[in-house]
Amino acid sequence: VTDPAFIGVDWGTTSFRAYLADAEGRAIDALAEGEGALALKPGEHELYLAGRLAKWPRLPVFACGMVGAKQGWREAPYVACPAGLVEIAAATLSVPTSLGVVRIAPGVRALDAAGAPDVMRGEETQLLGGLAADGGDGDGDGVYVLPGTHCKWVRVENGRISGFETFMTGEVFAVLKSHSVLGRMMAPAQDGGGFARGVEAARGLARPGDLLHAIFATRTLGLFEALPPDQLGEYLSGLLIGAEILAGARGAVRATAIGSAALSARYVEAGARLGVTIAPAPENCALLGLAALRKAL
Amino acid sequence: VTDPAFIGVDWGTTSFRAYLADAEGRAIDALAEGEGALALKPGEHELYLAGRLAKWPRLPVFACGMVGAKQGWREAPYVACPAGLVEIAAATLSVPTSLGVVRIAPGVRALDAAGAPDVMRGEETQLLGGLAADGGDGDGDGVYVLPGTHCKWVRVENGRISGFETFMTGEVFAVLKSHSVLGRMMAPAQDGGGFARGVEAARGLARPGDLLHAIFATRTLGLFEALPPDQLGEYLSGLLIGAEILAGARGAVRATAIGSAALSARYVEAGARLGVTIAPAPENCALLGLAALRKAL
Repeated sequence: VTDPAFIGVDWGTTSFRAYLADAEGRAIDALAEGEGALALKPGEHELYLAGRLAKWPRLPVFACGMVGAKQGWREAPYVACPAGLVEIAAATLSVPTSLGVVRIAPGVRALDAAGAPDVMRGEETQLLGGLAADGGDGDGDGVYVLPGTHCKWVRVENGRISGFETFMTGEVFAVLKSHSVLGRMMAPAQDGGGFARGVEAARGLARPGDLLHAIFATRTLGLFEALPPDQLGEYLSGLLIGAEILAGARGAVRATAIGSAALSARYVEAGARLGVTIAPAPENCALLGLAALRKAL
Repeated sequence: VTDPAFIGVDWGTTSFRAYLADAEGRAIDALAEGEGALALKPGEHELYLAGRLAKWPRLPVFACGMVGAKQGWREAPYVACPAGLVEIAAATLSVPTSLGVVRIAPGVRALDAAGAPDVMRGEETQLLGGLAADGGDGDGDGVYVLPGTHCKWVRVENGRISGFETFMTGEVFAVLKSHSVLGRMMAPAQDGGGFARGVEAARGLARPGDLLHAIFATRTLGLFEALPPDQLGEYLSGLLIGAEILAGARGAVRATAIGSAALSARYVEAGARLGVTIAPAPENCALLGLAALRKAL
């Protein structure tokens, strides 16, 4: 057993995860789920955190995620791209508390090709973890995908985030499934070819607006029994993820997926069908990133 | 005042409109809204219709819309493309009732470029009306758009529907506004440049999946106050309608919009910004189409 060196807190909008970790970001102990950073009222975060961490030795605390948002505990303003470990560490906020200094990682902002702003908060730390996990044999340059409700595609150059775009894939899928005419036709998903057919449909799209037609085709494929009800959700998932990969990869043929194993597996499968080899990173990238931040401070 | 010649019923999923009409499809009298064809139980339609029409003289009844769906009153199966007045009239269903024979227009089906089925029901009759309104100076060939929850883009060649695609634009907008993180940021729409900016954003999209990023950008434009809350819904509307027009028009530079004046006006404005001249058809195309069907039977 290695020595505990710090406490890492991955504190998102609706989730709280804390780890007692060694200097390399290996978890020695972990806490079950807790209250999300935006579920607490202003002023409640410090007391809540102290209560959660009471059973562990007092060690430096490093946190990332929406806890650093304006509506979170204390705002750690966004760092502009290009941003790597040095820039993110420099913008990390030190908050004096009864637990000692708590350090909160900043988010990162970028402009997309159309000049519209884009942001991440929490993903930058996962990305630092992914870069660290990449080992000492390279600078980690390349394309990273962070699947989720609001999925990020990130480009890393010279070890720094040079740009990224957020895709609303996960939430678009969720609202269509729960609130549209499509969801009413869907039965619980079973193994079957629906996901693969959705990915293939994504490949066949020509214009951006064709996606709005392909989404509707989920319904007609169901009506005409070209797809069984238990494959309709899978089809829609494959269609949206496939379209996202083809746009997000921007022609890259390799990418690394950072996130939950189950969701990453969908990206690996869809990528393989579209000529984009997606390799999953370790699952605990947030903690690895906090360990990297700690060493850089 | 002209003589009443027939009763036209535009009976959709959730709406019922009936007209006492002359032979040219001009409304002499109209009934207020009633129960949708899918809101009634099997077996209720005839009695409901008889009650609604009781105050008018007994005349031949011509109906279109979801009343002819499998889940409606009586199924009038879909006609395959190419389908014009002759084919649609030939597939019109005659239902003997206490009101005399009620004639129900069929829907039309097509295959999209990917081989997926697509359907319309009700829109085929509006389209026949649009073609009739086009006057005697042409065959009405061209591109038609029927805006709505599930918007149709229809190609007419030699006076017949040669193909069409449905876009889920209206419903995607509605579920994102009502159920996603985007809607929570939106204030009631005001006049402003939001719609035009959304249309311009649609023009800048390259790959189909970029639409999933541009949808998310609605959020970041709001977060960074690049758009005021009362323009966010307008922006999303412009983005989706713009993307739809660029895909649905398939390179055509002229189209005719059939549908409500308010929604058609959005398509006219967006089309003008995208190099597609969209002219609105008369609003009562369904009744004009039923009049055309009556003459063809």
